[in-house]
Amino acid sequence: MAKRAPSARKLRNPNELTATEAAAAIEAGTLKSEHLVAACLERIAARDVEVKAFVHIDEKLALWHARAADRLPRQGVLHGVPVAFKDVFDTADMPTRYNSAIYWDHRPVADSAAAALTRGAGGIVLGKTATTEFALAFPAGTRNPHNLRYSPGGSSSGSAASVADFMAPLAFGTQTGGSNIRPSSFCGIVGYKPSFNMISRSGLKILSESLDTVGVMGRSVADCLLLTHACADLPLVNVEKAPARAPRIGFCRTPRWSRAAPYLRKDLEAAAKRLARAGAKVSEVDLGPEFTELMDIHPEVMHWEGARNLFWERTRRRPLMSPMIKKRLDEGAAVTRKRYEHGQAVFRRGRALMAEIFSRYDILLTPPAAGEAPNDYLSMGDPSFNAMWTALGVPCVTLPVFRGPNRMPVGAQIVGAYMNDAATLVWSRWVQGKLG
Amino acid sequence: MAKRAPSARKLRNPNELTATEAAAAIEAGTLKSEHLVAACLERIAARDVEVKAFVHIDEKLALWHARAADRLPRQGVLHGVPVAFKDVFDTADMPTRYNSAIYWDHRPVADSAAAALTRGAGGIVLGKTATTEFALAFPAGTRNPHNLRYSPGGSSSGSAASVADFMAPLAFGTQTGGSNIRPSSFCGIVGYKPSFNMISRSGLKILSESLDTVGVMGRSVADCLLLTHACADLPLVNVEKAPARAPRIGFCRTPRWSRAAPYLRKDLEAAAKRLARAGAKVSEVDLGPEFTELMDIHPEVMHWEGARNLFWERTRRRPLMSPMIKKRLDEGAAVTRKRYEHGQAVFRRGRALMAEIFSRYDILLTPPAAGEAPNDYLSMGDPSFNAMWTALGVPCVTLPVFRGPNRMPVGAQIVGAYMNDAATLVWSRWVQGKLG
Repeated sequence: MAKRAPSARKLRNPNELTATEAAAAIEAGTLKSEHLVAACLERIAARDVEVKAFVHIDEKLALWHARAADRLPRQGVLHGVPVAFKDVFDTADMPTRYNSAIYWDHRPVADSAAAALTRGAGGIVLGKTATTEFALAFPAGTRNPHNLRYSPGGSSSGSAASVADFMAPLAFGTQTGGSNIRPSSFCGIVGYKPSFNMISRSGLKILSESLDTVGVMGRSVADCLLLTHACADLPLVNVEKAPARAPRIGFCRTPRWSRAAPYLRKDLEAAAKRLARAGAKVSEVDLGPEFTELMDIHPEVMHWEGARNLFWERTRRRPLMSPMIKKRLDEGAAVTRKRYEHGQAVFRRGRALMAEIFSRYDILLTPPAAGEAPNDYLSMGDPSFNAMWTALGVPCVTLPVFRGPNRMPVGAQIVGAYMNDAATLVWSRWVQGKLG
Repeated sequence: MAKRAPSARKLRNPNELTATEAAAAIEAGTLKSEHLVAACLERIAARDVEVKAFVHIDEKLALWHARAADRLPRQGVLHGVPVAFKDVFDTADMPTRYNSAIYWDHRPVADSAAAALTRGAGGIVLGKTATTEFALAFPAGTRNPHNLRYSPGGSSSGSAASVADFMAPLAFGTQTGGSNIRPSSFCGIVGYKPSFNMISRSGLKILSESLDTVGVMGRSVADCLLLTHACADLPLVNVEKAPARAPRIGFCRTPRWSRAAPYLRKDLEAAAKRLARAGAKVSEVDLGPEFTELMDIHPEVMHWEGARNLFWERTRRRPLMSPMIKKRLDEGAAVTRKRYEHGQAVFRRGRALMAEIFSRYDILLTPPAAGEAPNDYLSMGDPSFNAMWTALGVPCVTLPVFRGPNRMPVGAQIVGAYMNDAATLVWSRWVQGKLG
């Protein structure tokens, strides 16, 4: 593996800086956006022929924007900082293909809100990253930068790999099942899936309206907050500052605990003890049978909506879809409305139960994935530890604190109360500090 | 006024049929889709130079689709039936402009889900109807077909006028404040705003993700159900059949009662008595102060989201926006996140309170608008009686049962419990029968 360990060197390459560090250096005048973007592009040129994180890069365009940023007054908190976008976000100056042959020549008229807000805060759209087909099926072909034989996870495969491999300090993903948190865990970065409806989905290719959530990926908790602040005005609190008290933590095995790898179970149990020793009040949360049903019904709700949201593609451009996605969308079309409505009712009940749980806990500690990335770059991995939290609309953060038996990264997931995102990020940083 | 009263003639023109009647006649072989579409196009040719309901019509294309329907086996419940689309829904074969100069030359690659699902059920996209700019501000220029000096209401101005003037049997609108129900009331048709998340918004230009709701307009309750069934699989119950019992009706003046015209107040009070005489259990519902706050904060939530969803337009294409919409979106950008979050919390609390109210009532009877259409075709009308229900996500139906002092139509609004749409439509038809 070609990755440099950043801690081993005093002077890091600009592409190894966090977004927060890079933004501060640009603001202080000690770093040019052009040098930062050029370093990211060099890294991409050196590595992406193998990693395959990006599906579209326009080097001249990215450098043009960087030089413009260097000339202009500061536009906002992301001034001069490059951000990678999963190729399901519309961009007015780049193709947007959703990894679908239907859209091979598609270039949207307007930016998605996420892209426009990023640019509005001074950020630079570095390029478009690989996604599974419509963020649902058919693998993106991206490799895990920690070991190219392994999966980066999906569907936000390219975004996770680009951040992990120091190609971009920040990236946007999306999560409908586990597409933001799981790849972040597999790639050893910080993944943050905000509360439902945090970052605008305008100009995003919709799969499931009641589940699709814009997520962000970075190499630090502070970076994830920075991007969310730029897009949704989430307060830019200082996550590095120790909170006034240690959190009340619910250790949540979830009804899928048996699917978690034994080493991850042990790591999490040891982590719970370490956090208790560090001052946290830790106790076990046993989710009731409602949550088992919620997990079971999630795919039916997602596919019922997907069959309708992608109806034009499924019916008018059917030969250009993969057999995999056709099968899943056809299954969704076969789900009855009655079953779909039941699923939505189960989600609503789960959200009410969550509110009750979070009256007793500040955060939950739970697996972000079943274990290390699968040793098969075309596998997306098991969404067992994600889909529930997406349906519940609660904020999730994965922290790169463990390693599996194959030396691949594994995360610890922190889940917070709905719309309590800023505090959840602060507690997450505290947890990372104690476990890291 | 050129409108024929359908009841005065035995043999009606095909464009005067309801969608349910037309679909049945096409299925029975007694009506050709080509004749139906030709009759609609003739009506448009005769009237739309004055009414200005449509912003795009392609006569040859519509007739081509109609002739194809006449040749093909039955595709679904809308086979051969034309449907008008508010020009905020993407259509692959027609321009989609959102009444914005930014999009004067915009033709989407794909159909919106609503258009694709309509076509999938055999329906024909007749044309695109006038909307206010991005379904928010700047009037569409459409006239009320009952009297051209009067407003058709907005933002779904063209859709309401096209259905009222027998140009199309069915039309799609959207509602973020009161954009589907109010114009339906002003134009004397049946307007139906389903429960939130009923009909897919994929391919719809988003204004506010937590409020935008796809609505339908027809000349009968059955027609509104037919279109919703085609798109969202809502059960196709027989709304003409009397329900097993009369409904429990909450007469709901709302905290805005003083804004309702005196004649509408009297009409609704008399209607409540008539429905009680017809067997309904009618009592008054007094909404608490929470709902006053909910109404007050609705515009801030809508504009906060609108400022972000239309960020690209607002920043990169600013000179091509009307001063009116720039002002409103800039106001939204000035709303704090704290205030926005408070608004969402007020919405959630209101939804919980609604569930409690609907344990005691089947439906609510309430004004759909403050009264007749304003005598100014550029006025959109007062959203006081709509925005609250949109934020609560509950199904709303307006029924054309009253006339104002200027002989303009006025509706009665029926509001049902969240996700209880089929029953709400059945009760609405019962109410219409008793008041009509």
